[in-house]
Amino acid sequence: MRTPAIWLAILSALGLAAPAAAEDGYDLWLRHRPLADAPALAVEAAEADATVRLAARELERAAAGWRGGAAPAVSARALLIGTTASPAIAALRLPLAKLGEDGFVIRSASVGGRATMVIAANRPVGVLYGAFALIRRVEQGEAIDRIAVQDRPRVALRMLNHWDNLDRHVERGYAGQSIFDWWRLPDRVDPRLTDYARANASIGINAAVLNNVNAKADSLTAPYLAKAAAVADVLRPWGIRTFLSARFSAPIELGGLKTADPRDPAVAAWWRAKADEVWRAIPDFGGFLVKANSEGQPGPRDYGASHADGANMLAAAVRPHGGTVVWRAFVYADTDPADRAKQAWTEFRPLDGKFADNVLVQVKNGPLDFQPREPFHPLFGAMPKTPLVAEFQITKEYLGFSTHLAYLGTMWSEVLSADTFAKGKGSTVAKVVDGSLEGHRLTGIAGVANIGTDRDWSGSIFDQANWYAFGRLAWDPAADPAALAREWAAQTFSPAVAAPVAAMMMPSRQAVVDYMTPLGLAHLMGTGHHYGPAPWVADLARPEWNPVYYHRADARGIGFDRTRTGSDAVAQYARPLARRFADPRTVGEDYLLWFHHLPWDYRMPEGGTLWQALVRRYDRGVAAVGTMRAQWQALRPDIDAERFRVVSDDLAVQEREARWWRDASVAYWTSINGLPLPAGAAAPADTLDHYKSLSFPYAPGQGK
Amino acid sequence: MRTPAIWLAILSALGLAAPAAAEDGYDLWLRHRPLADAPALAVEAAEADATVRLAARELERAAAGWRGGAAPAVSARALLIGTTASPAIAALRLPLAKLGEDGFVIRSASVGGRATMVIAANRPVGVLYGAFALIRRVEQGEAIDRIAVQDRPRVALRMLNHWDNLDRHVERGYAGQSIFDWWRLPDRVDPRLTDYARANASIGINAAVLNNVNAKADSLTAPYLAKAAAVADVLRPWGIRTFLSARFSAPIELGGLKTADPRDPAVAAWWRAKADEVWRAIPDFGGFLVKANSEGQPGPRDYGASHADGANMLAAAVRPHGGTVVWRAFVYADTDPADRAKQAWTEFRPLDGKFADNVLVQVKNGPLDFQPREPFHPLFGAMPKTPLVAEFQITKEYLGFSTHLAYLGTMWSEVLSADTFAKGKGSTVAKVVDGSLEGHRLTGIAGVANIGTDRDWSGSIFDQANWYAFGRLAWDPAADPAALAREWAAQTFSPAVAAPVAAMMMPSRQAVVDYMTPLGLAHLMGTGHHYGPAPWVADLARPEWNPVYYHRADARGIGFDRTRTGSDAVAQYARPLARRFADPRTVGEDYLLWFHHLPWDYRMPEGGTLWQALVRRYDRGVAAVGTMRAQWQALRPDIDAERFRVVSDDLAVQEREARWWRDASVAYWTSINGLPLPAGAAAPADTLDHYKSLSFPYAPGQGK
Repeated sequence: MRTPAIWLAILSALGLAAPAAAEDGYDLWLRHRPLADAPALAVEAAEADATVRLAARELERAAAGWRGGAAPAVSARALLIGTTASPAIAALRLPLAKLGEDGFVIRSASVGGRATMVIAANRPVGVLYGAFALIRRVEQGEAIDRIAVQDRPRVALRMLNHWDNLDRHVERGYAGQSIFDWWRLPDRVDPRLTDYARANASIGINAAVLNNVNAKADSLTAPYLAKAAAVADVLRPWGIRTFLSARFSAPIELGGLKTADPRDPAVAAWWRAKADEVWRAIPDFGGFLVKANSEGQPGPRDYGASHADGANMLAAAVRPHGGTVVWRAFVYADTDPADRAKQAWTEFRPLDGKFADNVLVQVKNGPLDFQPREPFHPLFGAMPKTPLVAEFQITKEYLGFSTHLAYLGTMWSEVLSADTFAKGKGSTVAKVVDGSLEGHRLTGIAGVANIGTDRDWSGSIFDQANWYAFGRLAWDPAADPAALAREWAAQTFSPAVAAPVAAMMMPSRQAVVDYMTPLGLAHLMGTGHHYGPAPWVADLARPEWNPVYYHRADARGIGFDRTRTGSDAVAQYARPLARRFADPRTVGEDYLLWFHHLPWDYRMPEGGTLWQALVRRYDRGVAAVGTMRAQWQALRPDIDAERFRVVSDDLAVQEREARWWRDASVAYWTSINGLPLPAGAAAPADTLDHYKSLSFPYAPGQGK
Repeated sequence: MRTPAIWLAILSALGLAAPAAAEDGYDLWLRHRPLADAPALAVEAAEADATVRLAARELERAAAGWRGGAAPAVSARALLIGTTASPAIAALRLPLAKLGEDGFVIRSASVGGRATMVIAANRPVGVLYGAFALIRRVEQGEAIDRIAVQDRPRVALRMLNHWDNLDRHVERGYAGQSIFDWWRLPDRVDPRLTDYARANASIGINAAVLNNVNAKADSLTAPYLAKAAAVADVLRPWGIRTFLSARFSAPIELGGLKTADPRDPAVAAWWRAKADEVWRAIPDFGGFLVKANSEGQPGPRDYGASHADGANMLAAAVRPHGGTVVWRAFVYADTDPADRAKQAWTEFRPLDGKFADNVLVQVKNGPLDFQPREPFHPLFGAMPKTPLVAEFQITKEYLGFSTHLAYLGTMWSEVLSADTFAKGKGSTVAKVVDGSLEGHRLTGIAGVANIGTDRDWSGSIFDQANWYAFGRLAWDPAADPAALAREWAAQTFSPAVAAPVAAMMMPSRQAVVDYMTPLGLAHLMGTGHHYGPAPWVADLARPEWNPVYYHRADARGIGFDRTRTGSDAVAQYARPLARRFADPRTVGEDYLLWFHHLPWDYRMPEGGTLWQALVRRYDRGVAAVGTMRAQWQALRPDIDAERFRVVSDDLAVQEREARWWRDASVAYWTSINGLPLPAGAAAPADTLDHYKSLSFPYAPGQGK
């Protein structure tokens, strides 16, 4: 019998009033929590432009949040915002001439004899960027009257690529379904799209490709253009231009033509008419992104034409509308036995100078496919006449989906700051991409989005940081990823935890490298879904689909020889780099097994054998996750309960999966090299057969 | 040049403070908006039970909402809640003896000399139901001190069936992905699951089948049972038991057996061991739902055994744990040329009396498949020795997905109040289902859920009403659907609009019948996705997959002859009904073409020909949607902007699609009968070829 007990349920009315408004992550980094010395703002918009109005609204909204619901102060600080098109701003003669279309100035000025903060720009979107910059700085603890900024983005196209299918499945998506509800559009326009646009604008993103690069022709039909137009209407006032992925064979599938040969006048005419139709629906349409002759997609090579032929035909179609073609260089052929990492360079470098001037070629950060670590793609610096878009993957296809905490700002910065030596020392990837190395005006950075219908947008709180860092690095490729991590953490949590949260984030990607693919290994993930370890897979149809293709481990050694004795991929890099990469003593441990096949007993600079070093890396990776967990636990008093718990739960999964990666990999390598475990290394928790037996048919994000 | 204009952006701080907390539908009917005479409650729980604690919390939460954030009143009304296990409740000697496990009493009493409201029950879940009943009544405007209720559910198992796949795709789901995130479970338990459980408990639902009846064996593996257990842990305190759909061939797929023959001892042993494992993971597990030998699913018929053999073998496995087997009667064989509408009766009726006493047979409301209107399933009343679960489809596979406003309370009530004449007049389906006709103790009603990750849960605000009405009708199959519509509308919007909103809802399902499948027509929807009209489809592999199978229209007439001159399906009904159905003069217009093939110039009781009447019904259906739109527009002042807009947008789509249904159908019938349009009827807006050319490859909810 139950012990009878009378007890009183006393519940805080406050806590009950809005339980659904708990910290569920929906607000991203735009939380606008109460500040101790909340500045009161009297925002005055110098013109009636819709985007300037949004900027004013954002400032008011932030200020209301900072006040925490308190009434506006009677004597608020005047804040005048607008473009040089307004007399009030023009009269201030601010140094806007060199800030271009998207730059802005924030400073104090005397307006009509009154001390006034001013956000000024050449175009309305610059005012919006300035407003978000001011908010960002206040929320990091800067005193508003000390803020004086002149800024402009270094890259013109700061673009998200959504790999979102028309049925709402997101390829490589780990955050629910697509936020683009094609079925209900254009009649039902989810208010969430406004929040999406706003979040992008707050970090400077100004372009979005709405559909998967593995494209369906349907996205170019009239009904789907009307749907895309409804999305574009939402994005427009936030300074975001809409792009679509185009399926190269659409003239056949939609137009009833017999061919999609780019040299066929009927094909070119079809695309011209289609471009006209698209721009009628979306007057500020940006252009087409194309994945051609890559992983089964149709393309110009089907007709013996080159990628340049294909891109230029489309470029001609979009030119009358000021449109752009972004053509992906991610190609590798099932008929080409050459090292997959070499093939894009081989195919695209000869085309340098052959692309129309409204074509950008989009190159993944590394030559393979978004691995935890790759050397930069050798095309960077190798196509001086062609503007290259750097393509990063924000969604973590190969880095633990949205469960593992892995801050990618460090990875992207590592690539952007890498020196191509294309025009001598200091020819960084950043300078290639921002156009400064070769004087390109048309420039771009693309990120494969990690956005979905999950309430927290990205599948986890910390994955929001990657969306954030992508936008900020696209704005300034030289930005310090540690500063961006602190910036994000201050806004997402609080300035008080910015430093310790950033301290968790900064080594997190190296931890993933260590427990998944240490010392330059790559592509050892499970087949298809890329979840979990599967270095043993050797039975897939195409050689380069198999992990064994990449690690080449046998009883004697491990690694992919990409020196002259092997595939000679090193030769695709500039001379000084090629020399450095070609020597295992100078390549450095990050790319050691990427470029070299070495014996298991190879002596490492750190002492001991390669085998010992390899196991040490796995253990280091697992330990790093343990450290992150401890760091997070220490933050418990400073983090709201809901987000604290969900991050804690994910970190527990990450530690378990890091161990799994380590144990399965070590068990497999042992089965290959027959070596005993290094002294002090723990035996794998289970047998290799167990690890091989695991299957994950319902893993999210798979291609369809 | 832009006209320079200075304008001041004045924005309400209140409006800005919580824009994300707009009326997005997440709160369902549990909104607890401020009331004019908000009763202040001092809730006292008579015992420390978790469920009683939840009941107390719900009451406090509602009362806080009614106060609208104002401080609790100093002299609050005492409200004592608890079960007869507590001395304080037991001492009141309330009339709980006949209220069973789930019933409750609400009344005023003197407790310790103090006037006190009391919610009392035999079990904690009854207290929870009582708490929600009290809240529901207050929110409909009842004065709290006048509330005196004794209530109990008429049906034991009030069950949702989720057709949710393990990859989160929801078959026939139009509200986003599955709320069951199998991939992240059990580590990540979405707080939304608590809100799901709470919503169900508030309307009396006490069982949930978590996975699709088109089941994968994987759901019975240890990892997936751990995931289901994590869900069950959330549902348990809300009085909801967890069920799983079981794949009949699991002993082969998981157990490595050569057969799933229910008469094989190894198969029975496998299921016993599996049941033991399931109950170890989920101690209050409810049992298995099985779709066997139906639309490609494996089953006992594969081995020449009967459905009873299969169900009883499983029943033996779950019996030691007090478990239940729910066995679906939805069968039709590709090898059986008989009228599909007859096959379930033919197969199951001979099995009456052969099922174990912990087996329920689950029968769809009609003999076909959740059409806008069907006569009740002839198995109701035909299996007196077998408890039958009525299966309703809450998700609107055949009634316009979640876009069309169609209140299904009227449809279900129509079925439940239908007289089977099984034991003479008054032998309603409700009495079959609630067990009163034959004295069954084990009873159930199942609804195929319309719940997904959409913020509004059901894909539209008005589809929430179907979830609500299902729960309330499962509690009391005799409930008045008009009263339930008002109840829902009062809580979801406000008491002031309850009557006009209910007035929109009540004729809405008939409107769908009229513009899609008037006069007893059925199954004329597009292939596979069931979206839009496709009465012309005649080329599918199985005859009964084709709309032409159902309408049988030719130059002379239209309709399916199910009288003795045809399939004689009428003979499956009790004599008085069979007689009524067999005569076109007595069958009534609702089932006219369901049971009869009639000439186009058949004279209708209303005057004129069948052809004229048919077109008149289509036009009436379209007009009814126009009326709903006007009714909704008139409510604009009383509905929040966000929900007003989204409902308005959907109604516009519904009217457009109603016209499409009408025009495409009329165009098709004209092509068959060669008749001119009746006088005054508008010509279809487009050609039949146009309607035939439409295709919808990305329609949501398709089977996979």
